[in-house]
Amino acid sequence: MMPRVPHLQWGAVRPRASRRALPAVRMPDACGNDAIVIAALVAGGLLTGDPEVVAALDEPDLNALIEFGQPAWRELGTRLGELAAAGAIPAAARLPAGQYDAVLPIRITDFTDFYASLEHATNFGRIFRPGTPPVRGNWRHMPVGYNGRASTIVVSGTPVRRPYGQVALGELAPTRALDLECELGYVCGPTSPAAIAVDRAEEHIFGVVLVNDWSARDVQRVEYEPLGPLNGKSFATSMSAWITPLDALAGARVAPRSQDPQPADYLRARAPWILDAALEIELSGEVISRPRAAELYWTPAQMLAQLTVNGARLSAGDLLATGTISGAEPGTEGSLAELWRGERWLLDGDEVVLRGRAGGIELGEVRGRVAPASRRNRR
Amino acid sequence: MMPRVPHLQWGAVRPRASRRALPAVRMPDACGNDAIVIAALVAGGLLTGDPEVVAALDEPDLNALIEFGQPAWRELGTRLGELAAAGAIPAAARLPAGQYDAVLPIRITDFTDFYASLEHATNFGRIFRPGTPPVRGNWRHMPVGYNGRASTIVVSGTPVRRPYGQVALGELAPTRALDLECELGYVCGPTSPAAIAVDRAEEHIFGVVLVNDWSARDVQRVEYEPLGPLNGKSFATSMSAWITPLDALAGARVAPRSQDPQPADYLRARAPWILDAALEIELSGEVISRPRAAELYWTPAQMLAQLTVNGARLSAGDLLATGTISGAEPGTEGSLAELWRGERWLLDGDEVVLRGRAGGIELGEVRGRVAPASRRNRR
Repeated sequence: MMPRVPHLQWGAVRPRASRRALPAVRMPDACGNDAIVIAALVAGGLLTGDPEVVAALDEPDLNALIEFGQPAWRELGTRLGELAAAGAIPAAARLPAGQYDAVLPIRITDFTDFYASLEHATNFGRIFRPGTPPVRGNWRHMPVGYNGRASTIVVSGTPVRRPYGQVALGELAPTRALDLECELGYVCGPTSPAAIAVDRAEEHIFGVVLVNDWSARDVQRVEYEPLGPLNGKSFATSMSAWITPLDALAGARVAPRSQDPQPADYLRARAPWILDAALEIELSGEVISRPRAAELYWTPAQMLAQLTVNGARLSAGDLLATGTISGAEPGTEGSLAELWRGERWLLDGDEVVLRGRAGGIELGEVRGRVAPASRRNRR
Repeated sequence: MMPRVPHLQWGAVRPRASRRALPAVRMPDACGNDAIVIAALVAGGLLTGDPEVVAALDEPDLNALIEFGQPAWRELGTRLGELAAAGAIPAAARLPAGQYDAVLPIRITDFTDFYASLEHATNFGRIFRPGTPPVRGNWRHMPVGYNGRASTIVVSGTPVRRPYGQVALGELAPTRALDLECELGYVCGPTSPAAIAVDRAEEHIFGVVLVNDWSARDVQRVEYEPLGPLNGKSFATSMSAWITPLDALAGARVAPRSQDPQPADYLRARAPWILDAALEIELSGEVISRPRAAELYWTPAQMLAQLTVNGARLSAGDLLATGTISGAEPGTEGSLAELWRGERWLLDGDEVVLRGRAGGIELGEVRGRVAPASRRNRR
């Protein structure tokens, strides 16, 4: 019998003894939490192949590897899995937990956050624009989204400092309404100069992460009209250290909910799918909500088609996120604003952990603790 | 008498004979349009100094140099100017126009576009939201802005393809309302992990460019509520190939117009300034408008303080732009929407050139020609 090839997750690690980060993989079912430094397998003669791909494994992040596209990711992933299944990962390539720091695995070239949950859009419309129709007329015709700040994306484990901002007109203070947002993220590439058809989107999705798009609701409320959120979200966005390849999640694909009205042709896939990921939000040790990604209205392929339909170039390192994932039932909301209706927000010292499971695979978690506001930001 | 040290502009060029881009300067008053490859001066023994700074001159863009901060930029700029004044730039380091392509001089880490012109905000409020107060209540309390798409910023000279988009709900078509926006841009750095005080902002402004934030007005109108513009602007933003150092523009600083109400402390500079740049928009050979940057309401220092007050890290390579610069008088509008009130937009083949002069210095121009929509984007 052939040994089962273990499922792997991509990341980048800095060995504690080194200043230099390198691409790595983790194979939870074969090697536990050990990180396997891919370049060390190359150095040991265990991985050969296209010299350009091999050179990409000496970069501090995965961008160069993502640039090679799906066939290269698959080939490398399969070979790594075979090595693990054969017990052929030498100790020299393995770093046990405690001997490495997981770093941001990609240099984010752009971060686009969508707004793909109908229930979230409805809840937020009611909170931010009471007395008007909660969901705007455009919402069912296209995945609505906005550009986030790429350079303030941080890796899981990074403390998140409570931001200052105008909490009311003219009043600068640390936010009094710090929120979390539970989202799925799609790490995209390779670079494509032309629009990506909705049916070819998955060739451009390297893998899946969890995203916590921390939000200062008082700042966001004051600033967001008419150009959208900026300071209320740009202080930090956390993402998983470990990226689960889309390939590994084939078993987690389900048909998305129906869309009414039918969207325009360029958003209509022949075989639409969405990930059936069961998520959980843990706040200081207690699970407070269990959002379900299968309930999202817009699919990742539709988001990618929308992002590029105008000719915007996709880059290796583009991060797309779903926006807050909220369900219709109580206990499935993806933000505190919806869960606790403004009666309670995050406190200094609170730790938020987002977890997710899809197709039997545990996605890379996102963890972050709230640090007090910096006095340096007070003027 | 000491020779006058010529004014220089920073860029990056790819010699026609090479695939590799390198940092370069241009000295319009000493060397005309010749590009001077800085690494070639190092190779010729004419520039010495901190080996790390010298190594940065072998990078394909200016990000590494920007990271060294103002003292390093000034020292290098002075030395380059002295070499030129002394006639000591060897032919081996000079590339006459026609022997090089100017490339995007920085890797843009984030692009934040503000909305700093009161007249533009007023005009656009009237166009997009007739019957409501044109300028929102938050506008006079903070520089309102949004994140743009960094990876679709293109260098002057790059053709701009007419984008597809939903020009009306559910209707995908090439935009019928392609517009330009005349803006000033500020190339920022070095990386700073903490909020930048309004009085220290200029230490983080490497230089000034012109920006054309092309816009598909029909697409923008359909998509922008409530999260701001995305597809209507993300297809392309053009910037100058040549960056004028802020230092060189000391003679172009003027006191900004008064602000009412007085903004919060963190936006109140001890010695506020704004650039008095005379701009012009040329459309297919004819100057159609002459916006004046001194009329902007919000200053660059205020934009930088706003961007970072929440703790958002500034990176070397951050680009801030003013948003459309429109004056109160006819003939000073910064966009066609304001100039021609929807009666005419850009046609395929139109060429737009933005030019600017400040303190006797000609800023790097931005040029772009409209290419027809790609049939590949039609589905």
